[in-house]
Amino acid sequence: MSRFFSEKYSRLVPYTPGEQPRDMEYVKLNTNESPFAPPPSVVEAARREAERLELYPAPEPVELCKKFASSLGVLPTEVIAVNGSDEILDFAFKCFCGKRHPAVFPDITYGFYEVFAEADGVPYEKIPLREDFTVDVDDYVGVGKTVFIANPNAPTGIALPLSDIERIVASNPDNVVVIDEAYVDFGGESAAGLIHKYDNLLVTQTFSKSRSMAGARLGFGIACEELIRDLNTLKYSTNPYNVNRMTQAAGCAVLDEDDLIKENCRTIVSNREYLTAELRSFGFVTTDSSANFVFARHPKISGEELYLELKKRGVLVRHFTGERIKEYCRITVGSAGQIGILLEKTKEILEEKK
Amino acid sequence: MSRFFSEKYSRLVPYTPGEQPRDMEYVKLNTNESPFAPPPSVVEAARREAERLELYPAPEPVELCKKFASSLGVLPTEVIAVNGSDEILDFAFKCFCGKRHPAVFPDITYGFYEVFAEADGVPYEKIPLREDFTVDVDDYVGVGKTVFIANPNAPTGIALPLSDIERIVASNPDNVVVIDEAYVDFGGESAAGLIHKYDNLLVTQTFSKSRSMAGARLGFGIACEELIRDLNTLKYSTNPYNVNRMTQAAGCAVLDEDDLIKENCRTIVSNREYLTAELRSFGFVTTDSSANFVFARHPKISGEELYLELKKRGVLVRHFTGERIKEYCRITVGSAGQIGILLEKTKEILEEKK
Repeated sequence: MSRFFSEKYSRLVPYTPGEQPRDMEYVKLNTNESPFAPPPSVVEAARREAERLELYPAPEPVELCKKFASSLGVLPTEVIAVNGSDEILDFAFKCFCGKRHPAVFPDITYGFYEVFAEADGVPYEKIPLREDFTVDVDDYVGVGKTVFIANPNAPTGIALPLSDIERIVASNPDNVVVIDEAYVDFGGESAAGLIHKYDNLLVTQTFSKSRSMAGARLGFGIACEELIRDLNTLKYSTNPYNVNRMTQAAGCAVLDEDDLIKENCRTIVSNREYLTAELRSFGFVTTDSSANFVFARHPKISGEELYLELKKRGVLVRHFTGERIKEYCRITVGSAGQIGILLEKTKEILEEKK
Repeated sequence: MSRFFSEKYSRLVPYTPGEQPRDMEYVKLNTNESPFAPPPSVVEAARREAERLELYPAPEPVELCKKFASSLGVLPTEVIAVNGSDEILDFAFKCFCGKRHPAVFPDITYGFYEVFAEADGVPYEKIPLREDFTVDVDDYVGVGKTVFIANPNAPTGIALPLSDIERIVASNPDNVVVIDEAYVDFGGESAAGLIHKYDNLLVTQTFSKSRSMAGARLGFGIACEELIRDLNTLKYSTNPYNVNRMTQAAGCAVLDEDDLIKENCRTIVSNREYLTAELRSFGFVTTDSSANFVFARHPKISGEELYLELKKRGVLVRHFTGERIKEYCRITVGSAGQIGILLEKTKEILEEKK
């Protein structure tokens, strides 16, 4: 830390993204990416736009917002495009939290919420999930704070039904409720349709998972016009050209590939069911995931050891050190081939433990 | 504004980016873009990377930082890549300003500095430029605040010699001095080489101007390792994957095209000299620009009228409403063809005024 660094940030512990080691080629099942390459139309759209890179992107990506909004049945003025959904979450902490609106989220969820809150100097409370890692909805009903719920939750994959989400939104009319739907396309129910009913609901989505665009950085906020205007005020006061030309074009193109994307999602869901069944047959305990990952622990091996042993064998999964989840690994649902290797190596490791 | 919006931001007046009207095709000389398309190798690098969009980018763009650092003769750990140089400026206001380190910058400069300061709740002072729009260096020597100087300055194009920059940096050892070199490649002297001598110097650069990559969003901070670490702490606490895959690849590719880029810069400089001479022959008063734009006023027509009349005729230039500069227009140095049209239309307008 330099002697110039603002006191506000001097005690920050930044978020740790999934590792990307470069010492060898890994089977990469640690950051919940899609196993499917983007469709050729997306590559072509990005290439075409790269030819015009000398021009700034539209600060307001009209085409993209129109298309995305129409896919959800909302208005273009009810969405905002951002540089990956981390950006919209950061904006939400900045815009809708503060002393009068402290933040609240589960103790076990996307680890970045706590980092945002710390970075933005927002007071916050973490409510423990139940023993089985489910959210006790009553904890959030009328809680009177700015709520952040990932649905499905990470790293557990457990989803809340839409009726529960609506109870939380309806019972906190004086605070924004942020529903982070990064993993919604693999079995969750989106709350986006509720934005016309509730002026305090912000739904965030990403093109990084189901739409094979993690490398492009594209996320969205979906909310009533007033909330979107607030978010835009912040955007235009920090980084107006936040979504580059190629990503805007790729985003438009992928929205025209809905059938393919849905087919990909179905494959991932069926791979997830297979992976879960196999892991259980090996003796793993897994949560009931509605996401593109499986959260699993084995009574005979610690989460850290499994992670390290798999890494040695060229397979990356994600291990978290938090007390309640350190016995688990979060395993991305990859392609059939990737799952085959993961299962083979896991079996090997478990047999050596005998 | 929604009733949930944080008080911190409720009075924000966001930055207004240059307009991008869609009613017709304009000769676009209002946002200081390059008239040159990116080289084919850049387009190809972006395309190749688009094929792997399902994977997250490297949060630490090692290859890109290595190449860029080596082009400047600094270490990779002495640079940080960001989503356009607005992002690094925003980071600088957040990291290195505050109550103990108020910000200071000229009254006439990049308009975003004031917006950043307001958005980040940073106390700031604006020091008037001299009557001729030059910076009085003595105003900043030992000023004891976090200094922001655009060199060359915007929208005037006037540059300070490196010796003046060094005086400012050396005389403010307890504050960071930020030198914004967005336009340095058109005739300015970079301060990047001074980072090994001063631990309080942050230089910011962009690939949006000379490198024809405004549409890709790529900017850099250059400073001693400690300052870069601070900036990375903020990045990893807000948006770790801030530079997408395609932009990282395009940035690497353009760094291999140095001869072409230098040639483009020489063309722009010679176009600027031509444009300046022609405008002066029409009776315009222009500043002495070292950037890729000319700042000009005509005694017979107001800045606003010239801007509006040019717009009617399909030519966009930038007009600012600030009291001291409202008689001026900022005109991007385009291609010979674009300059020809601008001059023709300007002549037409001036003749009608007679």
